[in-house]
Amino acid sequence: MVSSVKIAIIGFGNVGRSLAKLIAFKGEDIEKKYGVRLNVVAVADSRGAVIREEGLIPYELLKLCELPRSYIFMYKPYGVSGASVEEVYSRIIPDIHVEVTPPNYKSGEPGLSNILYAINSGANVVTANKAPLVLKYDHIMQCAKQRGVLVKFKATVMAGTPLIDLLKSLKGYSIEAVEGIINSTTNYILTEMHEDLIPYSDALKKAQALGIAEPNPDLDVRGWDAAAKLVIISNVIGEPINLDDVERDDLSRIDLREVFKAIKENMVLKFIAKYKVKEKRASVKITKISKDDILSSVKGTMNAVRIRTDINDIVLIGKGAGGIETAYAIMDDVLSIAEVISPEP
Amino acid sequence: MVSSVKIAIIGFGNVGRSLAKLIAFKGEDIEKKYGVRLNVVAVADSRGAVIREEGLIPYELLKLCELPRSYIFMYKPYGVSGASVEEVYSRIIPDIHVEVTPPNYKSGEPGLSNILYAINSGANVVTANKAPLVLKYDHIMQCAKQRGVLVKFKATVMAGTPLIDLLKSLKGYSIEAVEGIINSTTNYILTEMHEDLIPYSDALKKAQALGIAEPNPDLDVRGWDAAAKLVIISNVIGEPINLDDVERDDLSRIDLREVFKAIKENMVLKFIAKYKVKEKRASVKITKISKDDILSSVKGTMNAVRIRTDINDIVLIGKGAGGIETAYAIMDDVLSIAEVISPEP
Repeated sequence: MVSSVKIAIIGFGNVGRSLAKLIAFKGEDIEKKYGVRLNVVAVADSRGAVIREEGLIPYELLKLCELPRSYIFMYKPYGVSGASVEEVYSRIIPDIHVEVTPPNYKSGEPGLSNILYAINSGANVVTANKAPLVLKYDHIMQCAKQRGVLVKFKATVMAGTPLIDLLKSLKGYSIEAVEGIINSTTNYILTEMHEDLIPYSDALKKAQALGIAEPNPDLDVRGWDAAAKLVIISNVIGEPINLDDVERDDLSRIDLREVFKAIKENMVLKFIAKYKVKEKRASVKITKISKDDILSSVKGTMNAVRIRTDINDIVLIGKGAGGIETAYAIMDDVLSIAEVISPEP
Repeated sequence: MVSSVKIAIIGFGNVGRSLAKLIAFKGEDIEKKYGVRLNVVAVADSRGAVIREEGLIPYELLKLCELPRSYIFMYKPYGVSGASVEEVYSRIIPDIHVEVTPPNYKSGEPGLSNILYAINSGANVVTANKAPLVLKYDHIMQCAKQRGVLVKFKATVMAGTPLIDLLKSLKGYSIEAVEGIINSTTNYILTEMHEDLIPYSDALKKAQALGIAEPNPDLDVRGWDAAAKLVIISNVIGEPINLDDVERDDLSRIDLREVFKAIKENMVLKFIAKYKVKEKRASVKITKISKDDILSSVKGTMNAVRIRTDINDIVLIGKGAGGIETAYAIMDDVLSIAEVISPEP
């Protein structure tokens, strides 16, 4: 028996489109393997929505991805110009609301309102947008509990590399510290500086040309992105901190001579995010590390996290960014919710 | 509200004792953090059992650990000479049966019968004994499903490093291969050979002196242990193979000159376990790897696994053996079962 799960994708940039393609291409395999049909009933962005109660077929999902950003409302006959999330929900309430809007660490919007609206409407939530969790983790989880729905967010940290699941599976351990490389853009820039001996500005330009850095790279290079991830990690391990509590270096101030100096000492500079649990101290800092440290070998857009526990260190390494990687993580969360909400096949 | 979970520990060697100590020392913390009281109502080994319906207090658990192997039946007043698992269950049926008897890859006994008996009695099962799963994974899971109980086994691979959970959390991915260092004894021996340039026999003696290798090291050095772990991994990812399907090298045949040769070529010899999923080919082989490969830097009793998926590689590194590490993994499984079976606090 196949159960069908109604999905709404809110936000339709790189990640939203990657998810739509993934469902279009892999939906049939998933259905065979898990007995779950992933039925996208709505897609929305800031300027409108596409709604089809019976679910968009793979071909339609792929066509949507061909439309320019913010123009999906023109898709015929299902596009609705200016439709808000509220309007989408007045037509159809999905089983799973996927939030892939961009993060805003000041207001949390539009993600925060969207997620709360979904929860209050009885939809389960999967989010790749970090900001709502960073600002209102407890409130969101509290609301979800009261309403009896699930909120999953493994895509928010390390994209397709399941650090959040790993942390959740360490129940009996005392986690003493979590440290590592959790921002791909800055690790790419630093790797380029070390390997090609080019200044920060050139390395940034290269990263931007490849789509690894945003046109405005502030969230990454000023440490906000890594700090936000530390806040989510701190909540997962039950020792929450606030975004403002995280000390941050500004990578854009780095001088190539610092890299030379490190190389001369047989060391490597890395942008290390670190949370010392007992002290409740968190930071994102340019850090000189030894070449013997496994983190020194993590290059380019790879990420790595070392979890220090009372009995051993666990290191997880994997790609930390990318639309398709993030889409896979969302898909995993969607499937784990589907397992719970649908009757066993 | 605190819910109490009745636990039986079957097998009382190094791992069983580590678990008893862990519960004795950390039980109170766990109770505070998760609202679950871990109540050990029975401990059994091959020569008898200790049964206390109200649960053994921490002091009693620690005293039991001071008794020599196979002598717990002498513990007064709760020791019962010659009591079998059946007899234990005739007195009290635990919520969770923890199987930590030694593995036998021919018969699966005594673990296999114990686990099936527990399931049929309605107990959930946590096992660190690999053999029953390696020989009868499907049958065990089928029985558990019919009886409505859970079987967890994360301690069977990489001890305290949760590879099994990681694999289970990759639902949407196509796993193409799993490869790595999953036997600590042989990795320790090879590391010693590389670093101290000593022959196999000396490295083995050192490992034995430190308790890293067994007096009879065959299960480790002839690749059975790693092969058994590959079989469990293959079942977790839904592409099962049999133990006999795994090609194995015998590490005891290695000549120190092979190590010299590898060093000269700037390479490293590792005992690599590998499962290529599509080809259904599995092996445990002495493999020459490049120093650029992250697996080359995994030394001593550390383990590491690389999961190759259709979109990215994920590497997990951590201690792969040890009584206390294994006990932590068992504790995690126990807690995740407790979450499901006990009413939410």
